[in-house]
Amino acid sequence: MKLLRIGEPGRERPHVALDGGLVLDVSDLTADYTPQFLAGGGLDRLRAEVVRRAGTGAGAPVPEGARVGAPIPRPGKIVCIGLNYADHAAETGAAIPAEPVVFMKAPDTFVGPRDEVRIPRGSAKTDYEVELGVVIGSRARYLESAAAGLAAVAGYLVCNDVSEREFQLERGGTWDKGKSCETFNPAGPYLVTADEVPDPGGLDLWLDVNGQRRQSSNTKNLIFGVGELIRYVSQFMVLEPGDLINTGTPGGVALATGRPEDYLKPGDVVELGITGLGAQRVTFVAAP
Amino acid sequence: MKLLRIGEPGRERPHVALDGGLVLDVSDLTADYTPQFLAGGGLDRLRAEVVRRAGTGAGAPVPEGARVGAPIPRPGKIVCIGLNYADHAAETGAAIPAEPVVFMKAPDTFVGPRDEVRIPRGSAKTDYEVELGVVIGSRARYLESAAAGLAAVAGYLVCNDVSEREFQLERGGTWDKGKSCETFNPAGPYLVTADEVPDPGGLDLWLDVNGQRRQSSNTKNLIFGVGELIRYVSQFMVLEPGDLINTGTPGGVALATGRPEDYLKPGDVVELGITGLGAQRVTFVAAP
Repeated sequence: MKLLRIGEPGRERPHVALDGGLVLDVSDLTADYTPQFLAGGGLDRLRAEVVRRAGTGAGAPVPEGARVGAPIPRPGKIVCIGLNYADHAAETGAAIPAEPVVFMKAPDTFVGPRDEVRIPRGSAKTDYEVELGVVIGSRARYLESAAAGLAAVAGYLVCNDVSEREFQLERGGTWDKGKSCETFNPAGPYLVTADEVPDPGGLDLWLDVNGQRRQSSNTKNLIFGVGELIRYVSQFMVLEPGDLINTGTPGGVALATGRPEDYLKPGDVVELGITGLGAQRVTFVAAP
Repeated sequence: MKLLRIGEPGRERPHVALDGGLVLDVSDLTADYTPQFLAGGGLDRLRAEVVRRAGTGAGAPVPEGARVGAPIPRPGKIVCIGLNYADHAAETGAAIPAEPVVFMKAPDTFVGPRDEVRIPRGSAKTDYEVELGVVIGSRARYLESAAAGLAAVAGYLVCNDVSEREFQLERGGTWDKGKSCETFNPAGPYLVTADEVPDPGGLDLWLDVNGQRRQSSNTKNLIFGVGELIRYVSQFMVLEPGDLINTGTPGGVALATGRPEDYLKPGDVVELGITGLGAQRVTFVAAP
């Protein structure tokens, strides 16, 4: 299934995308795609009912002018993986990590796939990072194998791990200072359930700025794959249903070019997508 | 007021501490000390009603055997400040930071002041950090002064920013990997409202391991004070009601002594407190 949520911020209603561009409002089946829903077998119940309703011809186009929100509510935590593509590690001058690099992003950065992203006041180095996002579906704690990691996945989505490089790298402390600015995690449009993504290690991902291709890779180039990342992170913290892991970005970020003009400016349009998971289109604006 | 919450995990009921060791169950006034409660004038309404009820002789001892939880529900985010006491920066070999060092702790590490803390599997370097915790009461975004920062505070509490030093410092990536293990943020017993803490920069804080004093300082030694920290962090991320800032730890942590036996072992009892904010007593156990 492709889950999505339609409505104004804080009032999104859960929907499922059907064939032919139609969507089905399922808010009578669950108030939202909450951690409890994910952990309690909600996806299986929803799938059965969606099949039944789709068979009766239910579904409608997305209402004109409707906002598509992030496909799940705000995660309990957002865990990010750094330097997880060899070409990105190389372009930033970093060594290939011997084990996954982990950092955090504030959960309240989570916004929709067509929302505006705010360039922070005083920022000269706002950058983009297309990433495969993974939503946890069942509690992951001290997992013993990558297979157990994959089994804990609820689904996959497109994320942009927006980053302010001066805040991240030149202002002391850890990377988090440049990762948690408001609106810095556009997510969606869809959460595609794990059963429809048999190989999360074989997905093309791409990102354009104002129509110009900047990033283009495939998740086969991940140094640490999805299952192994979940196994690894679960040794250090508990992953709960609804938590998000951003699995890292491939080469092509503005940080790497050395050209100040490659950083994002108000009015820039960033489009990004992943095979089968849909595409985002976000306009960057100056933070009011 | 001194707010506290009594009950099993996930079922805590809000109380207020009165004089003479009595507490008042206020769950008929608010279901919990939620962000909405803090942001919506809940503290002022509660104060008026508590004064009225206390005047009628209401209040009771804490029930025998009752669990005291963290004094607020799980924060939306936990922002930590590193190296914010000169003696701690010096003992870890770090320079005095030119601006605050910021990192994150997973919100689901938040537990009560007498709960067990789990030493992670494979850990040899689990360490303690007594800290003044600050709970945000009103949204803080691009604040212009330390005074505005102080005005955004709901209250103060005792926190232990438990840290696994090998995970934090020797396993690649940022500090977060050693900060977000399960149960790594004991909090409370009380949230003391800001009106009762006129000077958060003049509080003694201390920590004992098995009755031996390890940390002893005063928040006057904070390099960056509470108001300035909130102003500063609000330039990089939005602070929402219910968010927690751990303001940093003074010297005396196990990391600094160079003695492996100073790290925490199963069975160790850690007690810590801050003037006027109460004290914690936590037993460390091996993670099952």
